Amino acid sequence: MEFRSLVESRSSVRTYQKKPVEEEKLNYVLECARLAPSWANGQCWRFVVIRDPDVRKKVAATSLLNRWLKTAPVILVACADPKESGTRNGLHYFCVDVGIAFEHIVLAAADVGLGTCWLGAFDEKQVKTVLGIPKQIRVVALSPLGYPAKRTSLFGKIIKTIARSKRRKPLEDFVHYDHW
Amino acid sequence: MEFRSLVESRSSVRTYQKKPVEEEKLNYVLECARLAPSWANGQCWRFVVIRDPDVRKKVAATSLLNRWLKTAPVILVACADPKESGTRNGLHYFCVDVGIAFEHIVLAAADVGLGTCWLGAFDEKQVKTVLGIPKQIRVVALSPLGYPAKRTSLFGKIIKTIARSKRRKPLEDFVHYDHW
Repeated sequence: MEFRSLVESRSSVRTYQKKPVEEEKLNYVLECARLAPSWANGQCWRFVVIRDPDVRKKVAATSLLNRWLKTAPVILVACADPKESGTRNGLHYFCVDVGIAFEHIVLAAADVGLGTCWLGAFDEKQVKTVLGIPKQIRVVALSPLGYPAKRTSLFGKIIKTIARSKRRKPLEDFVHYDHW
Repeated sequence: MEFRSLVESRSSVRTYQKKPVEEEKLNYVLECARLAPSWANGQCWRFVVIRDPDVRKKVAATSLLNRWLKTAPVILVACADPKESGTRNGLHYFCVDVGIAFEHIVLAAADVGLGTCWLGAFDEKQVKTVLGIPKQIRVVALSPLGYPAKRTSLFGKIIKTIARSKRRKPLEDFVHYDHW
């Protein structure tokens, strides 16, 4: 799909079909993350792709808010090894690197008809325990991945309507020219 | 351009033509940032678009490494108001939000034939002073924006060759299935 249409049309998906995600599509979205730019090309990102229903259930159970996650055929867990990124002005760039790479996944998914939903509100410690993620690795975000449900729940419909309208600030609220 | 081709072909550009960036293209790349997803749709991002040659010179002078920046017709400064994003598990999500939105700009720029280059190594304090950026605002990244030079310098050529080859880890180095 054209980049412009992709950016305009992509929105968070919270209800999914049971239909599995084809290997080819999964590899395509991961490949798009692989090609992302990163701090000194360090590629600090790591991804856990969860298809096993028991593991999905366990990850979904780590947060009351994210129970619905288990209904997606795939859960993606975006992690980083901070050692492979940089720190400058007190900012940890592994968050930027993972932001870029995971957004590549999000856009690539929309490109092949798959839904995603950026999730930052989760219990990192519990997610790490369930998945056996090493101490030095940070979990930055989760997302479901799958085919959007055709008949969504009322909750899904409300959220979809809100998301579709893309409520955003106008440019003049966040763009400055030559000086703040 | 198709998203797939965009991700495959985009690379950092360090030498630029003097040709100014058309208002329409500038607005297109900013519009693509505007439509990015963010923590609770907080849209914490702020951008300073520098076209004034004197201001560009001053920003470029804040770092020895980034002197070449002044040769680009536009410098973009990606900032965030952390209050409009979230913090979870000790991570500041304004870095993720700006990572996403600035990468939308980077891809949108490539989509209309413009070059960019993610820069995280700069002196935030000095950049803030030059641009009059308020205390509570964080500067996350800089990038030049402009038409890539047709005849690049030797340095530019070397960098371009390296970047074009997209040296990246294979998927198996950073993807885990169901468990770490």
